[in-house]
Amino acid sequence: MNAVICTVDVVLLTLGDEGLSVALLKREREPYQGVAALPGGYIHADQDMHGVDAALRVLKNKTGIIPPYLEQLASFSGAARDPRGWSVSLAYYALVPLDVIARAGHPGVKLVSVERLHTLPFDHSAIVNTAVERLRSKSQYSSLPCFLAGDLFTLPQLQRVYEALMGEPLNKVSFRRKMAEMDVLDAVEGQLDAPSANRPAQLYRLKPQFRDQLRLLKRGL
Amino acid sequence: MNAVICTVDVVLLTLGDEGLSVALLKREREPYQGVAALPGGYIHADQDMHGVDAALRVLKNKTGIIPPYLEQLASFSGAARDPRGWSVSLAYYALVPLDVIARAGHPGVKLVSVERLHTLPFDHSAIVNTAVERLRSKSQYSSLPCFLAGDLFTLPQLQRVYEALMGEPLNKVSFRRKMAEMDVLDAVEGQLDAPSANRPAQLYRLKPQFRDQLRLLKRGL
Repeated sequence: MNAVICTVDVVLLTLGDEGLSVALLKREREPYQGVAALPGGYIHADQDMHGVDAALRVLKNKTGIIPPYLEQLASFSGAARDPRGWSVSLAYYALVPLDVIARAGHPGVKLVSVERLHTLPFDHSAIVNTAVERLRSKSQYSSLPCFLAGDLFTLPQLQRVYEALMGEPLNKVSFRRKMAEMDVLDAVEGQLDAPSANRPAQLYRLKPQFRDQLRLLKRGL
Repeated sequence: MNAVICTVDVVLLTLGDEGLSVALLKREREPYQGVAALPGGYIHADQDMHGVDAALRVLKNKTGIIPPYLEQLASFSGAARDPRGWSVSLAYYALVPLDVIARAGHPGVKLVSVERLHTLPFDHSAIVNTAVERLRSKSQYSSLPCFLAGDLFTLPQLQRVYEALMGEPLNKVSFRRKMAEMDVLDAVEGQLDAPSANRPAQLYRLKPQFRDQLRLLKRGL
């Protein structure tokens, strides 16, 4: 058995002022010291029960963030992706509303629009692209985008999140029918939208059982 | 950095006499020596360029099979899945027509119906279940089942493959419309079905550019 380097990397995605954005951190150590990259680190065999625990630990330690949703993305492996040697990265992607990143307030976290991403070290550009593709594809037939909408949101706000991810306008009536079909939302009693709105709008939140898991649609949006 | 065991495991699936079946091999070494399990092995950092090369090498060495289609499934990792220590398995799944397994003729390969699978060592049962779920889900909107149909097939034969994977009868007209929409098949000139057929049936094969990659449908079957 030859030694293989085993790491985790996390693609933390949010909807920022410039659209879908990924959280990058300057690397503290060589290789690529000082270069912005995905938060990542070694698996700690003495602390982590599973790969997902390593991903959550690294994310919390390096960004202060505990994401509402984190899922395995894929593994990236090979002889050439890391100058230190043959390596495996178990890549995960996580979704958080923008205000969660703001509240965590980690000074090193930099959000970069996925449309404007320069080349990242290792194969992190490929990892980000794979995550964005997965998110966009899964947005078509699941409740995944809800994890970017914040704790409370109106249906027009949620529709704009779906539209931002899918890159196309959605029909309001069919969007609402699909949301009703998924049945993942609770109307929040007595809570209304900002006072500047022309008329008060109903607020929603995810049902408790869907705050850490997806619901899938049989037929997409 | 703590040492983590890095392996690959391959779920080799085929349509056998008992429906969708997985190839198992008796393990040559401890742990679980002599017990039927997925073909798998260590990553060889000095031979394999990527994880997928390790999967193809292990499959070829242990079963004699070079599958027409092999894809990354997921990683399975943790402290408790392997008695030797903290381990990562990069799991892949491959599809082969039954006659490819027969031609390879490896005496140790045993096909077991996925419906009748007893508990496998490590977390191999979970790996098989994940592969079957992925195959069934992807069958709804891609050319994936074609890799189980053999080199040449009639449309009724291909429809039976799709039906076996999706577990439900499909409407012949809409099945043929979806196949035409995918545009992955070439009619084979002058070749006909078995002489016992009431009337000769057109034979098809995958177009060359789709013999090692999928085509996806925007809307499923």
